[in-house]
Parts: sequence; C-alpha cells; structure tokens
Amino acid sequence: MISKAQIKFIQSLHAKKNRLEQSLFIVEGVKIVNELLLSNRFKIHSLYYTKAFDDKSLKTAMNAYEVDEKTLAQISTLQTPNQVLALVHFNEDVPFVWEENKKYIALDNIQDPGNLGTIIRTAEWFGIDTIICSKQCVEYTNPKVIMSSMGSFLRVKIYYLDLIEIFESKPNIPLIGAFLEGENLYETTLNNAGILVIGSESHGISKDVSEYIQKKVKVPNFGAAESLNASIAHAVILSEWKRQEHGRK
Amino acid sequence: MISKAQIKFIQSLHAKKNRLEQSLFIVEGVKIVNELLLSNRFKIHSLYYTKAFDDKSLKTAMNAYEVDEKTLAQISTLQTPNQVLALVHFNEDVPFVWEENKKYIALDNIQDPGNLGTIIRTAEWFGIDTIICSKQCVEYTNPKVIMSSMGSFLRVKIYYLDLIEIFESKPNIPLIGAFLEGENLYETTLNNAGILVIGSESHGISKDVSEYIQKKVKVPNFGAAESLNASIAHAVILSEWKRQEHGRK
Repeated sequence: MISKAQIKFIQSLHAKKNRLEQSLFIVEGVKIVNELLLSNRFKIHSLYYTKAFDDKSLKTAMNAYEVDEKTLAQISTLQTPNQVLALVHFNEDVPFVWEENKKYIALDNIQDPGNLGTIIRTAEWFGIDTIICSKQCVEYTNPKVIMSSMGSFLRVKIYYLDLIEIFESKPNIPLIGAFLEGENLYETTLNNAGILVIGSESHGISKDVSEYIQKKVKVPNFGAAESLNASIAHAVILSEWKRQEHGRK
Repeated sequence: MISKAQIKFIQSLHAKKNRLEQSLFIVEGVKIVNELLLSNRFKIHSLYYTKAFDDKSLKTAMNAYEVDEKTLAQISTLQTPNQVLALVHFNEDVPFVWEENKKYIALDNIQDPGNLGTIIRTAEWFGIDTIICSKQCVEYTNPKVIMSSMGSFLRVKIYYLDLIEIFESKPNIPLIGAFLEGENLYETTLNNAGILVIGSESHGISKDVSEYIQKKVKVPNFGAAESLNASIAHAVILSEWKRQEHGRK
C-alpha cells in the first residue's frame, strides 16, 4: 500500500502546474505502460499496480507499489482505471536538430488534448518522427494527450518551440498549411520534404505564422460543414503528402 | 425561471435510457442551437437561455425559458455551459431508401461518441448525406456526439440498421473496408459509388460484416503505430475516395 501523502502527491500531478513544477507526468493502462517499460526514451519514477497486473519483472522492481482498486481509482485520471499507473520523468531536453529531406509537422496553438494525442498517433503512422509545437499548444504530458496518442508519444519527438524563430532561421523550408482560400489539395503538387503546419481548432493558422507559408492548400469540401476538425485536416493532408511521395518512387 | 421538477427532468436526459424513453435529447451552445433554429429536420421541445443569449425571436417563442447561469450549469452536460440549451424531439423515422451512384458510410459498432461526432462532421464535409450505423453503435443523441459533430448531425441523415440485412438485400453494392491485410490505398482503384465501412475502435470490422466486403484496403503505414483512430481512418479513406472521383471528372 501507499501512504496518504503519496496519494495526494500523485493526485496533484493531475494538474498541469504541478506536473511542470515536479517534471513528472502520469501514464496509465496496461497497454501503454507495457510499451513505456520497453521504451528507453522516458525514465520511470514509480509504478502503482493492482493484483490483476501481470508483470513479474515489474513487481520486483524498485519503486513499484501494489495498491488496491480503490486506491488506484483515487490516483487515476481515468473514469475506468486499468490496473497500472506510472509516474514518469519529463525528458531531458535534447536540442532540436533540423534535417533536410524530411517531413515535419508543426502545430500552431492546438488546444484540445484529444486532438494533440490523435495528431501524434497519426503522425507516427505516416512515418513522422518529430512534431514541433508552438509554445501555446497544450502540453503533451496532459493525461488525455497520453491516452489518445496510444503510446505514440513514446516514439515521436515533440518539441515546444517558437515557430517564427524556426521559419526565420530556415527560410528555404517548404511550408504547407491549410487555408480556406488555398489551392485544391487534389490538384496541387507537394514537395517531398518540409513542414505541414496545422492551425488551432478555433482560429486556424495564426496571422504571424501564415505569412511564412508558401503553399496554401485546401481540403475540398462538398457539403455545408464549415470546417474540419484539426486532427482530421492533419490526417487528410498528411496522407495526400505521403501518397504523392509514394507515387514518385 | 424553471421549477425543480423541470431541472430534474432535463438532468435525467443526460442518461441514454431516459432519452430513449422520452424521445428527447439535448443540444447546447450558441452556435449549434442557432443552426438548429434554422434547420427543419428537428422539432424543438423547449429552450433554456441566459440573459446573454441574443436572439429576440427566440425569447418570445413558446417554451423558451430564461434561466440564470447557475441553473444553466445544473441542466448542462458541458463543463463550460454556453448561454443556451435546447431539448429536441427525436426525428420521426423516415425509412431508409437506397440510391444508386451515391457514396455512403456504414459504421460497424463505433462506440466512442467523439469518434461518431467527428465522422458525421467529416462525412458532411466530403458530401456524404447518409450514414448507416449498426445497432450497436453509440447513439447520435449522446451530447458528446452532438458537440463533436459541430452541427453536422442537423444535415446528415443517420440510420440505425442491421448492416448484414442491407448487404444481403443489395448484393451488388461495392463495399470498401479497412483491413490490415488490405490493398495499399494509394495503389488501388475505388468505385465512384458504394459504401465505406468503418469498424469499431478496438476490434475493427466484425467477422460477419467483413465477409461481405469485396474491396479491402489499407492506409499504408510508415511507423510503429499499430492502428489509426477510427475517425482518422474514415477521413483518410473517404478523402482518397473523393480524390479519385475528382480526378476522373
């Protein structure tokens, strides 16, 4: 069992402020924690598991605590806790290094944690290994981001940087962005390399950022819907980007 | 103001069971309620708005009640209530009529309300006007479906039917589905008309349904992610379906 103080400490990490202060975040559920244990990218601080959790190596590890279901429910961020919860250290900052001939995603002020998690998962599916978030984006250590990324946060590098600074320092990077007045995505040619910029849920790509984008595209619409969800626009444009590259091979 | 009994009644509609019993569901927020008021598809039962809500025609309508913010918070399904809440009658059942030469979406056991709402919104964007849900899908009157559909539930017809019965009665319909062993989506040719079948979040397309699907496709993957979110797979395949049709014109 664990102490009341430990319970309180874990609960405090449900809030962003305390995660940032402690440089710790929460990862939950059998599947994602098992992937976490196999990953080298994050250092585990401590683990809390119920009897049902079936990992012998883990149960004998340092800082692993068996708890009852009631305690797990107390420390969990989920409505239906799933056997195990890990506290994980924030990554050491590895500086962002630009590589030519690669595809990147940049997110301009994405606020919804479900969207960020889904974007990370989709980006990994399509072979993206680095996502650049503007500093106003929701932090990826938010429990809802972790859950909706389905483990992809363990493999995709995520940086929080000033987008304008990057665009200023690399003026030759092809930048692609979605705009209502953009070219028809199905009729335009996309460079193999560059950055696809996705704007915020409510305001799209910000004015400052849009000034740097040479390639403005639009996912054609055929109905009365006013917009696409940001994670959907990301997936549709990224898929077309990969399809065009695939066709050139 | 409204009575305690009214508050209790509206609160009871937060639960599926009571929505089905009363044939009533909840629509909230300025933008969606304004779209609802312009739509002919649904009959409004009653409206609850705060002083901030700016629609004079509404305020003088029958069954419209001004409430204070505290009361709105009590009856709302949202964490941040937004000025107005409507109770809406379920649609009269209009029988499903099949039309040749059209694109349809069928959902096989979609459980997550956010996914269903996003699929409705994306489908409308791409010009789909009818979605066929298997009877096991989450009901579209779930408040989270309504919110994430962003008003598209007002314009896309949604049926809950037995998918197998439809496929049996229309054996010549081209059926497209996503399978891990499917053909590369970027290298295959899709019929202009037919049904795109999307499987459940955890199990994909069910065995019974998959036997009817002639066209098995796969969104190519380039990373270690095991799967795509169902609403993302829907968007990527639907976009490619529209792109191919667009290219033929």
